[in-house]
Amino acid sequence: MSYQNPVFIPGPTNIPEVIRKACDMPTIDHRSPAFARIFKPAVAGVKAVLGTRDGEIILFPSTGTGGWEAAITNTLSPGDTILAARFGMFSHRWIDMCQRHGLKAQIIETPWGEGAPLEAIEAALAADTAHRIRAVLATHNETATGVKSDIAGIRRAMDRTGHPAMLFVDGVSSIGSMPFEMDRWGVDIAVAGSQKGFMLPAGLAILGLSKKAVAAMETATLPRTFFDFRDMQKSYAAGGYPYTPAVGLINGLSTAVQMLQDEGLDKVYARHRRIAEGVRRAVAAWGMRPCAATPDLYSDTVTAVVVPDGFNGTEVVSLAASKYGMAFGVGLGEVAGKVFRIGHLGSLTDAMMLSGLATAEMCMADLGYPITLGSGVAAAQEYYRKTAGETARAAA
Amino acid sequence: MSYQNPVFIPGPTNIPEVIRKACDMPTIDHRSPAFARIFKPAVAGVKAVLGTRDGEIILFPSTGTGGWEAAITNTLSPGDTILAARFGMFSHRWIDMCQRHGLKAQIIETPWGEGAPLEAIEAALAADTAHRIRAVLATHNETATGVKSDIAGIRRAMDRTGHPAMLFVDGVSSIGSMPFEMDRWGVDIAVAGSQKGFMLPAGLAILGLSKKAVAAMETATLPRTFFDFRDMQKSYAAGGYPYTPAVGLINGLSTAVQMLQDEGLDKVYARHRRIAEGVRRAVAAWGMRPCAATPDLYSDTVTAVVVPDGFNGTEVVSLAASKYGMAFGVGLGEVAGKVFRIGHLGSLTDAMMLSGLATAEMCMADLGYPITLGSGVAAAQEYYRKTAGETARAAA
Amino acid sequence: MSYQNPVFIPGPTNIPEVIRKACDMPTIDHRSPAFARIFKPAVAGVKAVLGTRDGEIILFPSTGTGGWEAAITNTLSPGDTILAARFGMFSHRWIDMCQRHGLKAQIIETPWGEGAPLEAIEAALAADTAHRIRAVLATHNETATGVKSDIAGIRRAMDRTGHPAMLFVDGVSSIGSMPFEMDRWGVDIAVAGSQKGFMLPAGLAILGLSKKAVAAMETATLPRTFFDFRDMQKSYAAGGYPYTPAVGLINGLSTAVQMLQDEGLDKVYARHRRIAEGVRRAVAAWGMRPCAATPDLYSDTVTAVVVPDGFNGTEVVSLAASKYGMAFGVGLGEVAGKVFRIGHLGSLTDAMMLSGLATAEMCMADLGYPITLGSGVAAAQEYYRKTAGETARAAA
Amino acid sequence: MSYQNPVFIPGPTNIPEVIRKACDMPTIDHRSPAFARIFKPAVAGVKAVLGTRDGEIILFPSTGTGGWEAAITNTLSPGDTILAARFGMFSHRWIDMCQRHGLKAQIIETPWGEGAPLEAIEAALAADTAHRIRAVLATHNETATGVKSDIAGIRRAMDRTGHPAMLFVDGVSSIGSMPFEMDRWGVDIAVAGSQKGFMLPAGLAILGLSKKAVAAMETATLPRTFFDFRDMQKSYAAGGYPYTPAVGLINGLSTAVQMLQDEGLDKVYARHRRIAEGVRRAVAAWGMRPCAATPDLYSDTVTAVVVPDGFNGTEVVSLAASKYGMAFGVGLGEVAGKVFRIGHLGSLTDAMMLSGLATAEMCMADLGYPITLGSGVAAAQEYYRKTAGETARAAA
Repeated sequence: MSYQNPVFIPGPTNIPEVIRKACDMPTIDHRSPAFARIFKPAVAGVKAVLGTRDGEIILFPSTGTGGWEAAITNTLSPGDTILAARFGMFSHRWIDMCQRHGLKAQIIETPWGEGAPLEAIEAALAADTAHRIRAVLATHNETATGVKSDIAGIRRAMDRTGHPAMLFVDGVSSIGSMPFEMDRWGVDIAVAGSQKGFMLPAGLAILGLSKKAVAAMETATLPRTFFDFRDMQKSYAAGGYPYTPAVGLINGLSTAVQMLQDEGLDKVYARHRRIAEGVRRAVAAWGMRPCAATPDLYSDTVTAVVVPDGFNGTEVVSLAASKYGMAFGVGLGEVAGKVFRIGHLGSLTDAMMLSGLATAEMCMADLGYPITLGSGVAAAQEYYRKTAGETARAAA
Repeated sequence: MSYQNPVFIPGPTNIPEVIRKACDMPTIDHRSPAFARIFKPAVAGVKAVLGTRDGEIILFPSTGTGGWEAAITNTLSPGDTILAARFGMFSHRWIDMCQRHGLKAQIIETPWGEGAPLEAIEAALAADTAHRIRAVLATHNETATGVKSDIAGIRRAMDRTGHPAMLFVDGVSSIGSMPFEMDRWGVDIAVAGSQKGFMLPAGLAILGLSKKAVAAMETATLPRTFFDFRDMQKSYAAGGYPYTPAVGLINGLSTAVQMLQDEGLDKVYARHRRIAEGVRRAVAAWGMRPCAATPDLYSDTVTAVVVPDGFNGTEVVSLAASKYGMAFGVGLGEVAGKVFRIGHLGSLTDAMMLSGLATAEMCMADLGYPITLGSGVAAAQEYYRKTAGETARAAA
Repeated sequence: MSYQNPVFIPGPTNIPEVIRKACDMPTIDHRSPAFARIFKPAVAGVKAVLGTRDGEIILFPSTGTGGWEAAITNTLSPGDTILAARFGMFSHRWIDMCQRHGLKAQIIETPWGEGAPLEAIEAALAADTAHRIRAVLATHNETATGVKSDIAGIRRAMDRTGHPAMLFVDGVSSIGSMPFEMDRWGVDIAVAGSQKGFMLPAGLAILGLSKKAVAAMETATLPRTFFDFRDMQKSYAAGGYPYTPAVGLINGLSTAVQMLQDEGLDKVYARHRRIAEGVRRAVAAWGMRPCAATPDLYSDTVTAVVVPDGFNGTEVVSLAASKYGMAFGVGLGEVAGKVFRIGHLGSLTDAMMLSGLATAEMCMADLGYPITLGSGVAAAQEYYRKTAGETARAAA
Repeated sequence: MSYQNPVFIPGPTNIPEVIRKACDMPTIDHRSPAFARIFKPAVAGVKAVLGTRDGEIILFPSTGTGGWEAAITNTLSPGDTILAARFGMFSHRWIDMCQRHGLKAQIIETPWGEGAPLEAIEAALAADTAHRIRAVLATHNETATGVKSDIAGIRRAMDRTGHPAMLFVDGVSSIGSMPFEMDRWGVDIAVAGSQKGFMLPAGLAILGLSKKAVAAMETATLPRTFFDFRDMQKSYAAGGYPYTPAVGLINGLSTAVQMLQDEGLDKVYARHRRIAEGVRRAVAAWGMRPCAATPDLYSDTVTAVVVPDGFNGTEVVSLAASKYGMAFGVGLGEVAGKVFRIGHLGSLTDAMMLSGLATAEMCMADLGYPITLGSGVAAAQEYYRKTAGETARAAA
């Protein structure tokens, strides 16, 4: 492996030089004050990125999947009901996890390519007059289809129905890249991972908890120890950790949140939107379309490109890897073969993105797709050069 | 922080240069064949270090604590009984975890400083004619007291009583540093972490499973998803991972097991024993003694040094950190204040160890301990120089 | 600086991950045998890359410019005559250096864009019946114009005229990227630097010496100490160095030559030729042309692109840096403003090169050049995808 | 090589983590403004460390030896006379270099172990009524013997005699570790290297030039190009460099000077003096003595320990390397075998230094030296623990 090309999987993302160096630390004593000097700014920065003032931050040496598990085991009890829409592989997996933990899942089956169905959610909440639903689970950005959901809309539906359920949001592939407003949206638990918008290696589950979620942990009876919020709270209060923390990753997180804030979160989001729009223009120039059903659903972190009938998107990904040494994402689950996915989140420049588009074009041409070499690149170039300004310069 | 001094905490340990570089990787696509090229040698090497031919290896992006949890949730069901001796902070914590997961813990309270009480264990097993005990939990090396237990002896007790319970061993602070024989000792689950004998940063729970443990997971009903062995097995079979793996750490693990095998496991263990013996000679020269009750219990990875009456071992640790920039371990739980701990595992040379002993001496002198500066160093020097041979050279 | 984009200057080149790690070393004792274990494989590998069996290799902690100086001061005496053609900034500078060291330079002025004029050189040698010319200096690859010269042809001219002069070749921007045959071409001193085809940071001058050059140093009276071959020879024979060596760079060199040989030098050269050809096809698609006068002169490591009348190539470079964070080379000396330069040597993939071409296109479009966005990219894509085979895969 | 132990050679020194990371840079365009952003703070910091306000700083990708050569070739002409005392290997080498460059060296032979003989120098200057001596060369810290010389005293001698010669000082193993006052001492050229007090890898010659030295370069006729101050000056004025700079080292230098200034130069010097004093107390406890004739000559960066009659100091160094993996310095030249050298400059803690002393003790015991194990360590411990204060804490 020569690691020369950037990756265009929808995470883990390309790790900036300074973050790699922050993660690569000699051993320190995690029971010494040195640890707190690393941990505290990381937590403070995560709060800013999550958009919460009052929320508590918990970091597990784990992944987003562990974050999902921590969210449910700390707040729910066997037999509790959760409400969730299923419209992609990652919303599916969280639902499946709930079922494996003995929760009842009220599932709103939704076509892949669409987002969380606000009306159906509101109807389900309105119908639940007994308030059996303890939590609404929402996947902010469905990585499998490149679809974003309207979390504020879910909150409005909850408020309109006066439903007391908690709102848990999977923001693994959105947080740090797309606007996220934990407090304003009334999110009770936000789940993120280190390896997407935070531009770190995998290995940290990052959670934000509302006061309501914190209160829920007192009565929740699902068993947990490794993922127990209470142990974390108690240790954090003493400047420590209940077991050995992943110090290097936390140091990297501290650097990452500083980078995001130095750039300005609005600029970070605008940068992602701009890079994504270039990708979408390329897709259109190829005569193809995103899996996301309508433009309001377009994710700014990943585009699932629907391939023409008779083609298998997985072959684009395989060929890119074997012939050109470049990584894209395959279609998963229902859309396996029907799409290939271009991740465009984290640390990317115009030039990097164009190298991804150019490589995708070569693969498609190799496989006989009816596309013109350079066409998508040209569409993206035109957009990038017209819109390149301070944002682009800051990123470059 | 200038990171100039080695650490002498009983883990995380000092990370060798080549391992740091192996961990510090650019992003690769973990769904590509490149991942398998990293993962497979790591797994093969771990098997060798655990001393198992037929065992299965599972790696979680987690810590030893997560490994404990995976061990019990994958093999046991609510209400099941486990048998364990409590003789230190880490044996205590695993027992506590079992209780929090709804297991019944049959606890053999044992003085801190002693190891697993073979006779009491055998008696408990013999008394359990109904075979309610589903698993015996044993802490191979109690990090809090610097005591090693006789795992082979526990297996013999189990065999003598014909008890069908599984044997789960916490080898977090022994594996890779002290002899461990998973197959010969009939260990059903061995739990290790990346940050001790494997000389990596924290972030991986490393487990070895016997066929019996694998079979148990089919009927175990404790809920788990993140830590589910079945998802791991299924994904590993396809060269993948059920969620995003900690690729850099796995790459580092691959390097670490290669290093250990290149040196030769017997030489690795002899090296640890030799470094430890120097420390013990220093302790004796100071007129002090290890917390471990008898020499057969002495751990070769950590020594808990009992401080004289009227002194508080925690002050040694604080002063070492604040005045000399060096990290030792405080006493925990029952022995808080009564001991300070010197970790001597992982990548250490004679010279490094002598720097730790010399610094401990300065701290004790500063605090008025009745010790002679240089006395412990001289005792260790004499032992090291007499025994330095190929082993020392290989390590240096 | 975010270091996200590759550089397309004609050196220093992009440093592969493994080479960066090889260079980044802790301090070792350079007077210990550990140094020889690093130094010897570096020297052996350099011999292979230079194409010499009998030559001696000398490494200075310096740059290519230092290598030029070492070449002349170790072999020539004040008042000696050298013969050289001037057809670019780097051939000019070596001539200038000779003059500043009190040598007489017989200069064949040659249009920039052409290579070493074989007939004029042969004529000059034939005319020098007194054999006053002590050395012929040749710039194998003129980095300013992207022109390669026919070194074998110069040797033939020297042989045909029976002239006893030495042949000194500046291979700084060719060696390791384009075929170089020190022994077969009868090169007496070959000069390279670490930061081009060897893919290292700047900091090493790398020289290959024929027996004739070695003999010349006995009588040469130009003063030198730091650059004295004799001190190097004497120290190397004892496994040492006359002063403190740049150990990390030498370790990186050792890794680099291993990489080049593992890939196979022929494949390395073919890879450079293929990447370069894609760039040339892009240039043609833009309706532009290389500065090199004829195809046989085309360098495979750098292309100087002649800009249309009325445009200033330097602006392309400035805009690429300020707007897109990408580095190209400006025109130097006579061709300042008339060209911009695209470096395409060292560690590059198709995708990286396409990102460079796409960025150049955006800059030219921004500046009003009459080019079509995507046109050059498409031409390169077509060539790359048709020719991508084992070579591309090895590099990716 | 496992790189576990610190080195105790008198340079290159142990490289702090942050400096290693600063040096390990991806390629940037050294002709872009990014280079100036690295270069300018490095130069400004070097001025502070050299103690000059008006001096010019020149950085060559070279070593201290190159710095010596630059000093003489830029300011002197063939046949010029220099005055120098010879009292160690490094003073010898600079004199030898002068002679090889056609300068006349008026040498004051001085016993090794003594410093620059002020009276003899003054006498020589007074006798030189024709002012043939163009430069006085002084080795501030003779690394071979661990002797520092009184540069201010030489300046006073020059002033008293009204001699117009320039004063060139080799501060390679003193600058950044011991007080150096270029302006106050009237030093015309100060020569340093990256790999000693600046704690960087070898690869940079660092020079400070007075106005008088700058003026001298206009008339000096010794040939030079690579080392030509004029090319440097011209390029620096334009924010550039006359050839490819060692960007990573310069970035590291920028970090290093910031570290030194953040600590405070006075504290840096006090820290070195304190570490050195501990070493000297250990030497005395061994019943041995430094090579430096009197305490006022003791270097704070290196101690050459005189071994008892009948012993060969080189064996201590060899055994330390082969048996304990630790690097000390051998005796050079006249004192070969008679001493071994302990380097104690750069980034060192009490604990690191004690590991060096403890290892030296083991080697001496192994070789039958009449020393008591632990005796030197105890003497150093006693001194270190009594004097450890803010300085130690800052360094730890």
